[in-house]
Amino acid sequence: MSIVVVGSVAYDGVETPYGKVDRMLGGACTYIALSASYFHPVQIVGVVGEDFAQADRDFLASREIDLTGLEQVPGKTFFWQGVYSQDMNDRTTLRTDLNVFADFNPKLPETYKSADYLLLGNIQPALQRQVQTEMHAPQLIGGDTMNYWINDYRDELLATIKSWDFLLINDSEAKLLSGESNMRRAARKIIEMGPSTVVIKRGEYGAMLFREDQFFIVPGYLLDEVFDPTGAGDCFAGGFVGALAACGFDLKKSHIDRDELRRAVIYGSVMGSFCCEKFGVDRFRTLTRAEIDARYQEFKGFTEF
Amino acid sequence: MSIVVVGSVAYDGVETPYGKVDRMLGGACTYIALSASYFHPVQIVGVVGEDFAQADRDFLASREIDLTGLEQVPGKTFFWQGVYSQDMNDRTTLRTDLNVFADFNPKLPETYKSADYLLLGNIQPALQRQVQTEMHAPQLIGGDTMNYWINDYRDELLATIKSWDFLLINDSEAKLLSGESNMRRAARKIIEMGPSTVVIKRGEYGAMLFREDQFFIVPGYLLDEVFDPTGAGDCFAGGFVGALAACGFDLKKSHIDRDELRRAVIYGSVMGSFCCEKFGVDRFRTLTRAEIDARYQEFKGFTEF
Repeated sequence: MSIVVVGSVAYDGVETPYGKVDRMLGGACTYIALSASYFHPVQIVGVVGEDFAQADRDFLASREIDLTGLEQVPGKTFFWQGVYSQDMNDRTTLRTDLNVFADFNPKLPETYKSADYLLLGNIQPALQRQVQTEMHAPQLIGGDTMNYWINDYRDELLATIKSWDFLLINDSEAKLLSGESNMRRAARKIIEMGPSTVVIKRGEYGAMLFREDQFFIVPGYLLDEVFDPTGAGDCFAGGFVGALAACGFDLKKSHIDRDELRRAVIYGSVMGSFCCEKFGVDRFRTLTRAEIDARYQEFKGFTEF
Repeated sequence: MSIVVVGSVAYDGVETPYGKVDRMLGGACTYIALSASYFHPVQIVGVVGEDFAQADRDFLASREIDLTGLEQVPGKTFFWQGVYSQDMNDRTTLRTDLNVFADFNPKLPETYKSADYLLLGNIQPALQRQVQTEMHAPQLIGGDTMNYWINDYRDELLATIKSWDFLLINDSEAKLLSGESNMRRAARKIIEMGPSTVVIKRGEYGAMLFREDQFFIVPGYLLDEVFDPTGAGDCFAGGFVGALAACGFDLKKSHIDRDELRRAVIYGSVMGSFCCEKFGVDRFRTLTRAEIDARYQEFKGFTEF
């Protein structure tokens, strides 16, 4: 069984205080898939243009990611360009060329439909729902969204997340979606919207997991140097869902294993931290599972009391 | 033996989204002392004017805080007035009347000089140093500072903290003092300035403790309602130093007890969280040690994995 990941596959141009890369592999689906691939088999659904490099395809395949659902169509691949502030806490988008992603209509290969896990990256909520209905009976459905859909496609978004088991969202989006600035009350409102589990990402400050009966808070991993935070939130999502899939986790069960859920949040944080250590997806060219598990232990070391 | 706390005793006017109080007991020394008093005997050094109310003196005394060093002089007590933003993350100072605090010259009663713990609240660094030299042989000296002293009294500040065992500082001040925006590198630079232990406070995001050979990160306690964050950082300081004093902690020892140090950070966080639950010092009128220990356990519950 596997994790199906749907979302953008892109080229990014990124500038941070540590350097500048004009064009490199990026996109939410790419980051999620690479991160999750350390835990469980992954199958992706996305669209790229004629300019998508064989080397990038090969890299994804080298992580044993199933690319059957990566459609290649005439035109150019989605391109995003941005620049980060000196302290990395803000970024400015310089350019967004949707290109072939503008008409993205996710097509689920037959071989994906019986997957147990479905992670819907940040795309139009109606498209997320469409993919969802094509799946046979995934035991865990969750995804991400962003301010644009919250503001301008609210009804569609609410209809979509209603049947999700978990929602991954950052703190400012959680405020926007719930209308609450207090994270505890924001999470409570989002749980009422459908997802039994809400994971709020706080960037360098870590993450929080909420369910009706419990919550878990973890600080961020403290890197010496953040080279490029692009994709860190998606890598969190990949690590989180990957770790859950690896232990056959079922959020629909009435008695869920608290410890496995918490471990998944830590694995998410670990994967997000590795992502920032090099530009783009570069850290995943050398990262090993042993390094991931060592950082998990390090996390324990600097948080336990 | 006891903890000597030096700093401002004030009246505050505070407005938050939850309400407005024109005048209430405040000041760093007050918050630190009240918080620490739940853990260990406290002796304060401060100055107030003729308007300082007997009820406020009685309240401090009811927490068994030694007021021998609380000087009363002609004039008015330090008054500060501020208003918080809707999300409580920013505050604007509307008024600062230093009054008798402008000429504060801390006088250490003889009965204070043999205390084992000295916590120097945020005052002029030269005054902090003066108090320090009057003490016989405290086993632990530490304190707080702020951007004003870092910017305009840098040399004096550096000469003062050089002999401190610990520095408590918030994240933006740590950046300012060290010139580093990365907290790990900032802490390393501050440790080189003298204090063997640096505690960086991050407001709602928690706190971090750094020593040369270890670090500890804890997320903030998640309150349902933050009524008034005034004094939360000072209550953190009081809880931290109080918990260390309660177990006779000595930061000068070459082998320090990692677990006791971490527990002190949690107690600091716990006390900061209680502080926000009511306006000004009001929460400390009813707070019990049992509630503190229950919240400590709760902290363990939502952070362990």
